[in-house]
Amino acid sequence: MTQRVEILAIGDELVHGRIRDTNSAWLANALALVGLEVARISVVGDGEAELVAALTGACERSDIVIATGGLGPTEDDRTRRAAARAAGVELAFDEAAWQQVLAVFRGYAPQRDVPPSNRRQAEFPRGARVLRNRWGSAPGFALTIKGCTFYALPGVPRELWAMWAAHLEPELAASGDASLRGHSLHAVGCPEALLGEALAEFMSEGGPTRVGITASGGQLTVRVVGAEWSVVQGVAASIRLRIGEFLVYEGDHSLAEEVVHKLIESGVTLALAESCTGGLLAAELTEVPGISAVLLAGFVTYSDAAKVRDLGVDAALLETHGAVSVEVAEAMALGAARRTGARAAVSITGIAGPGGGTAEKPVGTLCFGLCLDGLTETVECRLGNLGRGLLRQRTVREALVRLHRMVLRSLPK
Amino acid sequence: MTQRVEILAIGDELVHGRIRDTNSAWLANALALVGLEVARISVVGDGEAELVAALTGACERSDIVIATGGLGPTEDDRTRRAAARAAGVELAFDEAAWQQVLAVFRGYAPQRDVPPSNRRQAEFPRGARVLRNRWGSAPGFALTIKGCTFYALPGVPRELWAMWAAHLEPELAASGDASLRGHSLHAVGCPEALLGEALAEFMSEGGPTRVGITASGGQLTVRVVGAEWSVVQGVAASIRLRIGEFLVYEGDHSLAEEVVHKLIESGVTLALAESCTGGLLAAELTEVPGISAVLLAGFVTYSDAAKVRDLGVDAALLETHGAVSVEVAEAMALGAARRTGARAAVSITGIAGPGGGTAEKPVGTLCFGLCLDGLTETVECRLGNLGRGLLRQRTVREALVRLHRMVLRSLPK
Repeated sequence: MTQRVEILAIGDELVHGRIRDTNSAWLANALALVGLEVARISVVGDGEAELVAALTGACERSDIVIATGGLGPTEDDRTRRAAARAAGVELAFDEAAWQQVLAVFRGYAPQRDVPPSNRRQAEFPRGARVLRNRWGSAPGFALTIKGCTFYALPGVPRELWAMWAAHLEPELAASGDASLRGHSLHAVGCPEALLGEALAEFMSEGGPTRVGITASGGQLTVRVVGAEWSVVQGVAASIRLRIGEFLVYEGDHSLAEEVVHKLIESGVTLALAESCTGGLLAAELTEVPGISAVLLAGFVTYSDAAKVRDLGVDAALLETHGAVSVEVAEAMALGAARRTGARAAVSITGIAGPGGGTAEKPVGTLCFGLCLDGLTETVECRLGNLGRGLLRQRTVREALVRLHRMVLRSLPK
Repeated sequence: MTQRVEILAIGDELVHGRIRDTNSAWLANALALVGLEVARISVVGDGEAELVAALTGACERSDIVIATGGLGPTEDDRTRRAAARAAGVELAFDEAAWQQVLAVFRGYAPQRDVPPSNRRQAEFPRGARVLRNRWGSAPGFALTIKGCTFYALPGVPRELWAMWAAHLEPELAASGDASLRGHSLHAVGCPEALLGEALAEFMSEGGPTRVGITASGGQLTVRVVGAEWSVVQGVAASIRLRIGEFLVYEGDHSLAEEVVHKLIESGVTLALAESCTGGLLAAELTEVPGISAVLLAGFVTYSDAAKVRDLGVDAALLETHGAVSVEVAEAMALGAARRTGARAAVSITGIAGPGGGTAEKPVGTLCFGLCLDGLTETVECRLGNLGRGLLRQRTVREALVRLHRMVLRSLPK
């Protein structure tokens, strides 16, 4: 029997868009790993009426509801009260939970008195099972509301993760359909409609697998999910053939992880030289553990002077072709490799905007330089004026795809 | 009359957590700027039954519902059909919209035939007003559903932003309560409960202002919202006094923007030297337009060799104190300043994990070096084993707070 699961993210800052709700995506992934699929995520503010309505609706529709946030010690933390109202019970003070709050607080700030308002964190709906939080002052709880199992967890990511591992994962692993598995294929350079058409026969509802296509930052991800692993693999094999040359890699990891793993596998050392992306490529790659084995150094050469001094780019080259040119990109990559002794290097120079564009080189003009063992390759492309943030992300994606291709070529067939 | 607004984000990849829903936060912010406050955000998958249920519920509860996603050309794009079902009407082919789809597609890939499945993008619920999309192949639409104005927009961020500016913003600006305004104060280093207690009197529901506290990456943001600007400012002034020394800055911009603006204002040039954060500090700062006026260069010196070669750190210092030490952090900052001629420099060296920790220097040990006009300051702190991603973010936040403080001191009082 498939269980219906919903997530409820609570907080004015989330529903008003001042902070992105990253917990829900994390939870949905964690739930998927125990075979539970999320049917809906709702984000509501701290206002009590809306919170009670959303919480009640979710519990009426679902078997399991997991809420995050609103467990803090302040007046605007209303999850405890809203759950009590939805369940039609009172709030009751829990002495054991209060001792735990005190213990955590004293460990955190031994020199300070515990503010009395923290007592609120030890009040729970009557009948609730308190879930201990060793990593912060807000205990969670589980409560049956309208026949649904409702979990309230803190909104601080690190506490949420630890509470999930300690309490929910062991409980929910038993109720999940652990045989539901998925496989992802990632393509770049192909229009979504064309890919959708090529895969249309796999995409109608009701078959033994579900196939979806996601577009993100110019990357298309095809996801195959099904109960039978062999069927999922069979469908993935057919899809692989249809995607053809546009396929970049497969699996649930990120493109940065894919690139780092391939670098480590091939033993190719790397240096980076970034202008308009200002360290974003380095930051994405260094997010991956183990990168220190291959990344020798990165240079953020924002100014012409830095390109000359730190990468040895010829000042005349900058003068003749301009900083945003394939000639300078090539010299940056070669300079980074030479200076660090890395076998491979990637450089990026371009115009991220909002200022700096010209008729000849508008915002969105990007030049990449790549080198491996002294052989170079350069690319110029126009990504358009997407806005600084998105443009920089796309640029990094573009650089990663090309670096991936170059590293793959260096691997034994 | 306050209008009730909901957002509906559509896509399996969102509800299953493979991609974070960033559109909803963006839309909520855009709505706030025209005086409309979002009451709820719902995220649902591509399955038609759930989509129809969520869409119907949102329209029944609200005056305005804005949906993003599910307008693509593939079989799993079901927003058009779901809206038609919720409104109880049929889908009808729109020739004018089809011509627009063709025009956009031909501009994008003139050499390719338009896949017939793109025709689906020109089918709309009968009675819908088509919203032209000049930036992608998926037109949006507006439709009255159960007395609610329902807007369907594409999920691709760049198209969403452009469609908002072209169609929704002009329409909605008239219906928003443009007098609703907010003010944010950002604090670091203070426990949330303590701050909540200090501000408790401002935080109950029903007063002329609403005050909320958000914790994110160790930064506490206090947000005051109200209809009367003078009242909002008065409450903000009282709160400012209560936050005291923990206050870092005020306003709706990010800490990185705050730091860059202060650097530009003070005319202090900057160089960066990063080890464990691998370019993340540079990437955050260079996200801010105008940074090129002050940032001279950044160095990602992951290896000891890079610290010696690119920053002139004494190899004996590395040998004696280890790469993660205040001595090396200081030498890195001084080296970056000296090499680039920058007046100020910040360095970060630490252990981000998961590997590399020791009993003496566990994962989460961070050393910062700062210098301004030759005067240096170093800090060592233990942020704990938060996980690589979160730890790196916190580290960058810590560096930004300290850089901010240093730059403030250089400004004339």
